[in-house]
Amino acid sequence: VVDSFAARFAAVRARMGPLVLGLDPARSLLETWGLGDSPAGLDHFVDEALAAAVGTVGIVKPQSAFYERHGWRGMRSLERLTSDARAAGLLVVLDAKRGDIGSTNDAYADVYLAEGAPLAADAVTVHPYLGLQAMTALVERARDGGRCVLVVTRSSNPEARTLQAAIGASGRSVEQELLEEIGRLNCELAPGRIGPVGAVVAPVLGEPALDLAPASALFLAPGVGAQGATPADVGATFAACPDRVMPSASRSLLGLGPDRLRLREGIAALAAVFRDVLAGS
Amino acid sequence: VVDSFAARFAAVRARMGPLVLGLDPARSLLETWGLGDSPAGLDHFVDEALAAAVGTVGIVKPQSAFYERHGWRGMRSLERLTSDARAAGLLVVLDAKRGDIGSTNDAYADVYLAEGAPLAADAVTVHPYLGLQAMTALVERARDGGRCVLVVTRSSNPEARTLQAAIGASGRSVEQELLEEIGRLNCELAPGRIGPVGAVVAPVLGEPALDLAPASALFLAPGVGAQGATPADVGATFAACPDRVMPSASRSLLGLGPDRLRLREGIAALAAVFRDVLAGS
Repeated sequence: VVDSFAARFAAVRARMGPLVLGLDPARSLLETWGLGDSPAGLDHFVDEALAAAVGTVGIVKPQSAFYERHGWRGMRSLERLTSDARAAGLLVVLDAKRGDIGSTNDAYADVYLAEGAPLAADAVTVHPYLGLQAMTALVERARDGGRCVLVVTRSSNPEARTLQAAIGASGRSVEQELLEEIGRLNCELAPGRIGPVGAVVAPVLGEPALDLAPASALFLAPGVGAQGATPADVGATFAACPDRVMPSASRSLLGLGPDRLRLREGIAALAAVFRDVLAGS
Repeated sequence: VVDSFAARFAAVRARMGPLVLGLDPARSLLETWGLGDSPAGLDHFVDEALAAAVGTVGIVKPQSAFYERHGWRGMRSLERLTSDARAAGLLVVLDAKRGDIGSTNDAYADVYLAEGAPLAADAVTVHPYLGLQAMTALVERARDGGRCVLVVTRSSNPEARTLQAAIGASGRSVEQELLEEIGRLNCELAPGRIGPVGAVVAPVLGEPALDLAPASALFLAPGVGAQGATPADVGATFAACPDRVMPSASRSLLGLGPDRLRLREGIAALAAVFRDVLAGS
């Protein structure tokens, strides 16, 4: 029997804390680090990213777009990053925000959640615009393999509020309805436990609080640091379930590089902050 | 001055008709065609797809997921397909349904819409869950390069209805609000003309008709054939703007292969049907 992703996250959290290191090698970062905005520079970034992550955090989150920018060579670097990180005991959340009709989602399940697949990760982000019910293959594959599908529910950017706050048939917002749908899926897939379908919920202040309880889920909290959210914002947003949150920071940490020591110290310091803020039960 | 995508589509439509050939090499198709579900099989599919498309249609639409399944080697095949198809005079719509926060969308603009980029296409599909206003780089790049960003607005699958029919702040549905937002963007980007932001609108019968006029846009109509929509459904859905529609069929056509003659004849026959159904002005 395979451990669930929730159990694997709990073990990593106990050892390393909940912080997720976002690995977003934007053009400006590759240039600032002196690596060059090229497939070779990106491949070098992968070495540096692994050196920074191993021993400082338990989870890394590469954003697919920054690897796709470099064509198939960039995807080859992303595959190497993913498999080397997992081999080193890190959990890998691939931030891909995929989502399509059912037959295409079946293919995405093969990409990200099939044992032995080139990009097999521990978790993958998806977007819900074509409906969660079209994601059967993804969520079943996640359950069977101890992996996680993270549904973007409330994103960190203000441009998304209009759509995410629209009102569904139940009279609740799109994002609140998604949390309830995630809860129903998790109840079916993992009765009485934290299920394989998680939610991406940004710690956005000044918006109506979401009722997180119905989801029986893990939460990825993006946007810490450069996007403006503080550890205290994360603590406040998830006060009801601090042990189920994966807070993610990328630019604010990578910006400390390329000096390896300074980068590792900065990551470790934020990891310590989140161990305290999300100490929970 | 670069021709707009709308002008380039109009030229292709006059020559070849509006049909879009979806190039979706699912596992089952690769096996049925005797190519094998492997990177080598996929690369062979690319040769067959080009042989089928050139001279029968004006537009092809590879679905990224089916290439991503084969890792970086699959992406290399997709790059070859894209560049060879464009070199042969076909328009390429990359069906990727990407969409993220602004800084990540900037990277996707580099992937799909930058001249000389590995996957540079004529159009790319995006999803709007994180907001169209976060897509500035994509839409400006599209305008400047004579390319098109196609926003998934009403998808062809029933699982999507709940979210897409939710009611926004204006009292209209998410999908109708999107059409209006697309219209505002197009007005800014290309006043008085068909703009660079298009919409994916499935010819779904039995749902409230959308008011397509505000968008000043081209429309991609997916789901013809295997997903159940008929040419007559497409004609009815877009009766007000038949000359702005790109109807897309994939499985129902590719299923005629691997015999090249039978496949080309089937594609040409459906192309002729759509030339009639969408004759328009």
